[in-house]
Amino acid sequence: MHDITDAVARVVAASGIRTGLAHVFNIGSTAAVGTIEFEPGLQEDLPELLDKLIPPSRHYGHEQAWQDGNGHSHLQASWLGPDLTVPVREGRLALGTWQQIFHLECDVKPRRREIVVTVMGE
Amino acid sequence: MHDITDAVARVVAASGIRTGLAHVFNIGSTAAVGTIEFEPGLQEDLPELLDKLIPPSRHYGHEQAWQDGNGHSHLQASWLGPDLTVPVREGRLALGTWQQIFHLECDVKPRRREIVVTVMGE
Amino acid sequence: MHDITDAVARVVAASGIRTGLAHVFNIGSTAAVGTIEFEPGLQEDLPELLDKLIPPSRHYGHEQAWQDGNGHSHLQASWLGPDLTVPVREGRLALGTWQQIFHLECDVKPRRREIVVTVMGE
Repeated sequence: MHDITDAVARVVAASGIRTGLAHVFNIGSTAAVGTIEFEPGLQEDLPELLDKLIPPSRHYGHEQAWQDGNGHSHLQASWLGPDLTVPVREGRLALGTWQQIFHLECDVKPRRREIVVTVMGE
Repeated sequence: MHDITDAVARVVAASGIRTGLAHVFNIGSTAAVGTIEFEPGLQEDLPELLDKLIPPSRHYGHEQAWQDGNGHSHLQASWLGPDLTVPVREGRLALGTWQQIFHLECDVKPRRREIVVTVMGE
Repeated sequence: MHDITDAVARVVAASGIRTGLAHVFNIGSTAAVGTIEFEPGLQEDLPELLDKLIPPSRHYGHEQAWQDGNGHSHLQASWLGPDLTVPVREGRLALGTWQQIFHLECDVKPRRREIVVTVMGE
């Protein structure tokens, strides 16, 4: 789980847009983005919760096609969602003080990820 | 569960927009949209997971008003969410190879659905 | 849980935008927005479901840093998400008849909240 707030904020700053929206999207079907208070406890709590409610298992239908052991990764990622949109005000992300943008890898192996940020407004 | 990627892609192509965002929205409170690797296993896994975590039952408070047996449908749909936003780059949806846009009917009877697609950008 | 549909609709009307998107965002990491049929049964069902799947407890890692008893609040809010985007058509929110925009407080104490609405389009 990574805090990508600063990376997104840099794209917003470079865009020159003062008022509008910043959209963050994970390309691929086994990772998710969202907001969280990015502190060590919750960094463990969220993946643990996902593994409790959507547990790793070889019994998912997905395994019949792929046998790669990541059926739960797909379901966890679809459940949380690949996209997040944050308001831009006065040229900055309008987030709470304790609210950061996270990227969560749900797959069973490390993956190189492409995250697309789009800033619109004026 | 339906793969609506091609339908959304056609709206993007017809818009002439090269760089921006495509927003997909399900009108109504008992269906959802999102992304998933649209293969037969996961097409069964996702609804099964929803029914496991948010099971069909006559005990939801919603039943007191409506008695239509779809309290879980409302909760499943609210849980997954009615909206998805995908980046548009070079006039195309910026999705992963194994990442499709799904529409999931959560209601207990077949429903005719209206899905609104909005493309913004330049 | 509050129905904020009318408040969002007023921002849309005041914007003068006829076709586009309305984005709703909760600032802070322990509340969420989404859509639901806003009737008394579901107003109880959704928080009950969240407390069942993501129960209040002192055992979350978040408690080690803060001891404020709201680890589950953070997880519930991250799970549902802080943002929602709804299409605008003919100057109005394109929602279903039984589909309203909710704001759900997940924290353990009443909180004063700032919700940012952004309308884009033409």
